[in-house]
Amino acid sequence: MIKTAILGIGTVGAGTAEVLTKNKDVIARRAGQEIEVKYILCRKPRPDHPLADRIVHDFEVIVGDPEIAVVAECIGGATVAYEYDKRCLLAGKSVVTSNKELVAKHGMELTAIARDKGVNFLFEGSVGGGIPILRPIVQCLAANEITSVCGILNGTTNYILTEMIQCGKTFDQALKEAQEKGYAELDPTADVEGIDAGRKISILADLCFGKNVAPEEVKTVGITAIASADIEYARILGYKIKLLGRALRTGPNSVTAFVEPHLISKSNPIANIDGVMNGISVKGDAVGETMFFGPGAGALPTASAVAADVIDCVREPNTRKYLGWWPSEPGYVTDPDLISSRWLVRTGADLSGIGAAFGNARFITAPAGAQGEYAFVTDYMSRAALDRRAAGMDVRAVYRILD
Amino acid sequence: MIKTAILGIGTVGAGTAEVLTKNKDVIARRAGQEIEVKYILCRKPRPDHPLADRIVHDFEVIVGDPEIAVVAECIGGATVAYEYDKRCLLAGKSVVTSNKELVAKHGMELTAIARDKGVNFLFEGSVGGGIPILRPIVQCLAANEITSVCGILNGTTNYILTEMIQCGKTFDQALKEAQEKGYAELDPTADVEGIDAGRKISILADLCFGKNVAPEEVKTVGITAIASADIEYARILGYKIKLLGRALRTGPNSVTAFVEPHLISKSNPIANIDGVMNGISVKGDAVGETMFFGPGAGALPTASAVAADVIDCVREPNTRKYLGWWPSEPGYVTDPDLISSRWLVRTGADLSGIGAAFGNARFITAPAGAQGEYAFVTDYMSRAALDRRAAGMDVRAVYRILD
Repeated sequence: MIKTAILGIGTVGAGTAEVLTKNKDVIARRAGQEIEVKYILCRKPRPDHPLADRIVHDFEVIVGDPEIAVVAECIGGATVAYEYDKRCLLAGKSVVTSNKELVAKHGMELTAIARDKGVNFLFEGSVGGGIPILRPIVQCLAANEITSVCGILNGTTNYILTEMIQCGKTFDQALKEAQEKGYAELDPTADVEGIDAGRKISILADLCFGKNVAPEEVKTVGITAIASADIEYARILGYKIKLLGRALRTGPNSVTAFVEPHLISKSNPIANIDGVMNGISVKGDAVGETMFFGPGAGALPTASAVAADVIDCVREPNTRKYLGWWPSEPGYVTDPDLISSRWLVRTGADLSGIGAAFGNARFITAPAGAQGEYAFVTDYMSRAALDRRAAGMDVRAVYRILD
Repeated sequence: MIKTAILGIGTVGAGTAEVLTKNKDVIARRAGQEIEVKYILCRKPRPDHPLADRIVHDFEVIVGDPEIAVVAECIGGATVAYEYDKRCLLAGKSVVTSNKELVAKHGMELTAIARDKGVNFLFEGSVGGGIPILRPIVQCLAANEITSVCGILNGTTNYILTEMIQCGKTFDQALKEAQEKGYAELDPTADVEGIDAGRKISILADLCFGKNVAPEEVKTVGITAIASADIEYARILGYKIKLLGRALRTGPNSVTAFVEPHLISKSNPIANIDGVMNGISVKGDAVGETMFFGPGAGALPTASAVAADVIDCVREPNTRKYLGWWPSEPGYVTDPDLISSRWLVRTGADLSGIGAAFGNARFITAPAGAQGEYAFVTDYMSRAALDRRAAGMDVRAVYRILD
């Protein structure tokens, strides 16, 4: 029997308690022994909770209890959670979490502490919710030089875009609906500005390429500026607008990582990941391309990943999963604006202006109602080169294209 | 430095040698030490091979060398490979393989021997080629009661079906082309009769549900009887014909596993896995549905999985991955003909005969050229019930439908 504690009783904490309790038998079989939730840390009393007898309000009870071998941190954020996770690791307890903000910001330090203390710091649920993605990359693709990772990493924005694309809603309408359904928070900034996806692609870049990419080094563009007209031009071209997080190797010792809305070809399976689902593509030099789809958020899917990490800590107590990565040198993370792509440009410029600036542009038939503007697809060029060519032009929208 | 041996120098063996050599540095970093290929077992001399100096012809050299800690068996089949793998495990060496015939037939015994001897028997590449699938199921989804697994598990048949669907080829034309391109063997029986997919779904059922499903307990129907007319009817209905391997929990202590051509809705992402790609869906009670796509065969993709298993054996020499499962009781594997589905039926019977037998049938508009027959979709019923209703009817084709 192994005793665990869950920190926090919000969506993920409650889900983790539920999964560990409900699937107790199958989990005991797979972990090799029973896993008991001894404590749940919660600030307020919760006499109505089915596990009310486990609730404690004082973190010191948990960190000071030598019986607790594994702690599932489900608090979120990078302040209290950072302090608690660090203290648990230093106290010789394994810690598991789905807290992407914390892992993106402090993962390198926390994995190093875990290594020093001979315990585990696991965070499968921090990217892709319930989708198995970090272990597949670190273990199953370990023989590959990974060249790129790319995906729909945020369910809220994917839901909003899906509603805009499939039902013709505006961004504001779709956001409001997402809030009513509980898919978006009252303050949706972290989702709609691409910050959440940026944290996740930072973690993926850390693990795929082995050196630290800090979340503030990830350039992010959100979805707030996407107009219905952009969606229509994309449709006419056979593409969908999706918010993609991407990380690419750009040289022997450099990578780039960014989040921005892309036009993605409908023939790419990622383009058909709709609603709150997530989808991630990983390319390696031996395997080629592999893809992973599933529920990227939600109480039980995320709890599925957190509980799996708990099981992994219990199953092989002498194993250390060492998910760590190394510090990066200055210049390791390069500017995504230097990555060459084709681009969709929507502009109020006239034909001669477009021709002078872009020469060989492929124009897109205007959708019904579009007036006084053109949209076209450029040749391959960097964003920096595009901006130079379009200097002084009335540019209304620019999207990177992924086939 | 860890020393390994590769048994066999066919497609997968050569690929494994290539990956372990080419990506030596990144592999050493991830494994924690260098991995050297000390021997390659090959019956014939191969003086032209880049690793000719490692080639030996006598298995006894390898099994008797205490320096060899990990053996990658790339022979195939379940005779010599079985003997060699067993002897290596008994000699205290870890064994990794992508040999699905062997794992489906003898996996339970070989994992038990590995457990007894404190070594590993790993076989990530035996299902889905390079796609990470077995570790995700066993580790990442360990907190779930898995309810079903379903997928396109054979690239050869998926290539043939894709050519039939997209280019209007007949089965014989598409098979011939697949043979010319090296996607199908001269004797294509194991692929086109569903035997290969049956071995893989047997392994998936073993790992998902924890008890043994012998390959001979998997009912398999191949793709040789699929007519162009069937493909057309499916298209009109918004479906594709795909050869699916499926395993489902049917009761607290029973499962079923089978391989047969299905009509699968085009809105299901698995339906859009074309060519030689594989795609697998896994459903769990906490996570919901997750999907895994990628190259299901080929030298380098499969070698990617085999080499990852080698790295895993090296990285944590004190860990045992215990992928095992347990014997099943009589009656554990139930008949898939009892599983309720909707069905497409193509028949030469007349309308009154169809109405009398099936009542509430939904007829499908006939494609150009179809004469003297009807195709319709039934209500939900088992295959056994369908066969009873259609007794005496001129039935030309029956397909299970998956939405």
